[in-house]
Amino acid sequence: MDVAEARAEDALNALVRLLDGDLEACNRTIVAHMASQVPLIPQLAAHIVAAGGKRLRPLLTLATARLCGYPGTTGGMRHVKLAACVEFIHTATLLHDDVVDESVLRRGLASANAVFGNKASVLVGDFLFARAFQLMVEDGSLAVLGVLSAAAATIAEGEVLQLATQNDLSTSEERYLDVVKGKTAALFSAACQVGALVADRPGREAAALAEFGLNLGIAFQLVDDALDYAADQTVLGKTIGDDFREGKITLPVLVAFQRGDAAECEFWRRTIETGEQTEADLDRAVHLMERRGAIRATIDRAARFAVTAKQALMTFSDDPLRGALLDVTDYTVSRAR
Amino acid sequence: MDVAEARAEDALNALVRLLDGDLEACNRTIVAHMASQVPLIPQLAAHIVAAGGKRLRPLLTLATARLCGYPGTTGGMRHVKLAACVEFIHTATLLHDDVVDESVLRRGLASANAVFGNKASVLVGDFLFARAFQLMVEDGSLAVLGVLSAAAATIAEGEVLQLATQNDLSTSEERYLDVVKGKTAALFSAACQVGALVADRPGREAAALAEFGLNLGIAFQLVDDALDYAADQTVLGKTIGDDFREGKITLPVLVAFQRGDAAECEFWRRTIETGEQTEADLDRAVHLMERRGAIRATIDRAARFAVTAKQALMTFSDDPLRGALLDVTDYTVSRAR
Repeated sequence: MDVAEARAEDALNALVRLLDGDLEACNRTIVAHMASQVPLIPQLAAHIVAAGGKRLRPLLTLATARLCGYPGTTGGMRHVKLAACVEFIHTATLLHDDVVDESVLRRGLASANAVFGNKASVLVGDFLFARAFQLMVEDGSLAVLGVLSAAAATIAEGEVLQLATQNDLSTSEERYLDVVKGKTAALFSAACQVGALVADRPGREAAALAEFGLNLGIAFQLVDDALDYAADQTVLGKTIGDDFREGKITLPVLVAFQRGDAAECEFWRRTIETGEQTEADLDRAVHLMERRGAIRATIDRAARFAVTAKQALMTFSDDPLRGALLDVTDYTVSRAR
Repeated sequence: MDVAEARAEDALNALVRLLDGDLEACNRTIVAHMASQVPLIPQLAAHIVAAGGKRLRPLLTLATARLCGYPGTTGGMRHVKLAACVEFIHTATLLHDDVVDESVLRRGLASANAVFGNKASVLVGDFLFARAFQLMVEDGSLAVLGVLSAAAATIAEGEVLQLATQNDLSTSEERYLDVVKGKTAALFSAACQVGALVADRPGREAAALAEFGLNLGIAFQLVDDALDYAADQTVLGKTIGDDFREGKITLPVLVAFQRGDAAECEFWRRTIETGEQTEADLDRAVHLMERRGAIRATIDRAARFAVTAKQALMTFSDDPLRGALLDVTDYTVSRAR
């Protein structure tokens, strides 16, 4: 783990400590509600839910609820339950993404798909998605149900749009950002809005937190896309070059293609559009990105979204939780520097 | 189309006529809510939603709502919207089932999966599922949301259980029925309960309709399982022998295996458990089922569930709608005779 990665983890850990047991309660809720009489469900779900993810999205729900004055464990546990819903929706999309992307590694472990097969990944994803809605119904807030069902639809649209842009180097940056907003930022935004709703702050605070989550989510995904060409595999915990091998259109590719000379454009067309790749091509791709500053441009763009995210938090007065969320935002970007 | 199939369609058409435009309104609602800025979504959804399915599940919601005194189009359109939700959930499971089962034909058309690929089927299924929940949130009934989110979780559990029993001839009939209740009957039951809830009949009527739907759904699936070994392909509109080729454990197989002699058991072990099949094996399987009365036994079992379903409807007083639902139940079974 390098220094930037370690500091990013420190920022998350500081946030967790401020939440005073909420994350642990959320983890217990997650495990309790994965239960099913069908043994394969908790087995497979545990493989991915309990695989040591950072729980970033449920942390956002817990933190924003507290930031909005929700009384926490002494006053109620709604925020914990709804944070678990957010993680279930996220896990369902990961499971379905495993089917989609044929990822070999996810968080450094064999992906659920590689171990259990396509069918099980689809169906257990469906189960977790349904279970999330059952928990929301138990909670009883139609406003929360509205935010998270809309986010779920937007996520699916973003993923389908990503499919439509795959292998297509004529994709505009705007369209790429639409994909990112859908597949990643919509759930970040919804997770933060839910925090405001559970604390009965549906107006200005909910809007500010939706804006914060949306921009943080975009920054997070841009950094992720950069790391897919730049990270040390042991740090990132996923296979480097996944996006490249799948011909996924991301900002580093678009920038390198747009700034490349004729030979470079030919290289990108062959590897991304027609999908003809040799062993040495990933190294060449990384080299061309470095030459054209494509990773740097992507991180810079992420940093600008992070600034917008932090500005949205200025709606709230100074507070240790606000400070921790600002730090998490900073380190989301700096883990890639 | 043979006589039994034609009479089954007549029974459905009689029900549709009694509903006085509700089904047409439901179809319009379905088309309107498949809309998305991502063109692949309505394209793919239309392929399966508009492919001329019988709309049996939304018809159950529409019919039970009216049977419970819901005023229909003059008094409100909640039942129409919720019937569309039921169809969206059903369509999502079909799309995900395409991924799962590698079906070549569905309703006589190329399956969405064969045309658009695994990825798109998973993601558009997710979109329709999310859209169903958005529509339910718009409707605003937590009771309806509770019934349909629970059904969605049960469907996923049933599908996973089916996966766990695949290729396993030691599966008990009870476990097979658990699969059927989950993957099929749960949504039939929920569709009927929703009819009662929308008509503000959450007590005795909702319970009776849940019972009706559950038993009708089991009967329907048993007949479907029988037809997979017995139907004329042009009638059923799906590939005969799908279940056989996938090594799916269904009642016809269990009965033929249990009643078979040593050579027959050896045949079933080879074809279903180890999946080694030759061209001639499907004919042999159908022949052995006829010899052992396995199709007959399956249909008889279906008929008993149909009787239980009809008894549940006796909670309601005599009424043309009740009569039409009784006819639909009868012809669900007799289409296989």
